Amino acid sequence: MPREAGAEAEVTFSRRVPTGDSLPRDICDRCGFINYVNPKIVVGSVVTYGDKFLLCRRAIEPRRGFWTLPAGFMEQGETTEDGARREAREEANADITVRDLLAIYNIPRIAQVQIMYRATLAEPVFSAGEESLEVGLFAWEDIPWSELAFPSVYWALTQFRSVMNDSVIAPFTNPDGENGNFFPLSGPPAS
Amino acid sequence: MPREAGAEAEVTFSRRVPTGDSLPRDICDRCGFINYVNPKIVVGSVVTYGDKFLLCRRAIEPRRGFWTLPAGFMEQGETTEDGARREAREEANADITVRDLLAIYNIPRIAQVQIMYRATLAEPVFSAGEESLEVGLFAWEDIPWSELAFPSVYWALTQFRSVMNDSVIAPFTNPDGENGNFFPLSGPPAS
Repeated sequence: MPREAGAEAEVTFSRRVPTGDSLPRDICDRCGFINYVNPKIVVGSVVTYGDKFLLCRRAIEPRRGFWTLPAGFMEQGETTEDGARREAREEANADITVRDLLAIYNIPRIAQVQIMYRATLAEPVFSAGEESLEVGLFAWEDIPWSELAFPSVYWALTQFRSVMNDSVIAPFTNPDGENGNFFPLSGPPAS
Repeated sequence: MPREAGAEAEVTFSRRVPTGDSLPRDICDRCGFINYVNPKIVVGSVVTYGDKFLLCRRAIEPRRGFWTLPAGFMEQGETTEDGARREAREEANADITVRDLLAIYNIPRIAQVQIMYRATLAEPVFSAGEESLEVGLFAWEDIPWSELAFPSVYWALTQFRSVMNDSVIAPFTNPDGENGNFFPLSGPPAS
C-alpha cells in the first residue's frame, strides 16, 4: 500500500469482494475505504532525430543505470499525447512532436498498459532530466541492446524499425507469446 | 471516495502533495494511506455482423436507457483485447473476434482513456447481459443517433464507417477540438 511518511496509525486493509462488486478489493478495516486498483497507463515514445534514437539512462529504480525510452505514468487531466510529451520534457529536457501511435503493450503481471507513439525531435537539443543519468542519440547499430531497461523498450525499437518507411501503420501489440516478463534476447537484434 | 457499506468510522482524507511527489493526492488522516488515482482505461469495440452494428441499451447509470457499444473498465490481470472480449460477453452475451485498433479517445475531465477495437461477430447470437436492457443489430441508417449514450459512441461509429473498407488503418483519436464533454449532434450524421 502506498503510504505517507510519518503516519501514526497502522494500515489494515482486508481483501474481499465489496457489496455489489464481483472481484476482491482491498478494503480499509476501519473506515471501509475501497482501494480500487485499475491497470495503470504508461505513455511514451520512440523519439528520432534523423536516423538516430533518443534514449535515457535511468537514474531511478527499477533498472537504474539501464537505457529506456522517454516514458512514464500518465497523470490525471492530461491526454495520452500530452503525457508522452511531458515525459520527454521531464526525462530528457526534449521538446518532441508526437506523430502517430506505434503500439499498445499489455503487461498483465504488473497491470500495465503501455501506449507508445512515434515522435520526432526538431533539433538535437536535450539533456538529462531528474530521473535520467544521461540522455543520448544513438544510431541503430550503436544502441546498447544488452543494457536496455525493459522488454518493451526492445519491442518498441525493433517494431519501429520494421515500419520506419511507412506513413500509415497498424499499431503493434506484444510480440507473439510475450508477456513482458522476460527479455527476448540480450544481444543485438537479428537484422 | 469509494466506500464499503456498513463501515463504522468516518473517512477523512486530506489533499496534499506527499513527500517526494509532485502532485497533490488524497491522503488518509489516520494511517497515511495515499490514494493514487490514475486515469482509468475503458476497453470496447465497434462490433459488426455483415453491415450491421451491435449496440446495447444501458440498464445502469450513467445514461440508463441510452444506446452504447460493448465497453467497460479494464480489470487487472487481463489485456486490453481480453477486456474488450469480456465486455461483449458480459453486456451482450456475444462472442466477438477482436480485429484491430480503431481509436484511443481521451476524456480528461473524467481521467478516462478509451481503447476501442474493430471486432466482428461470427454468428448473430447475442442477448441482453445484466447491464443491458436490450441488445440489437442495427443497419447504419437505423442506428438510434439521438439516443446514443456518450459522445465517444458517436465518434467510434462514424470513424469506423469512414475507414470501413480499409484493412490497415491509423487509429483515430478525439475529433479535432472535442473533449468528450458534449455531443457533436443529436441527429443522424451528415453522410
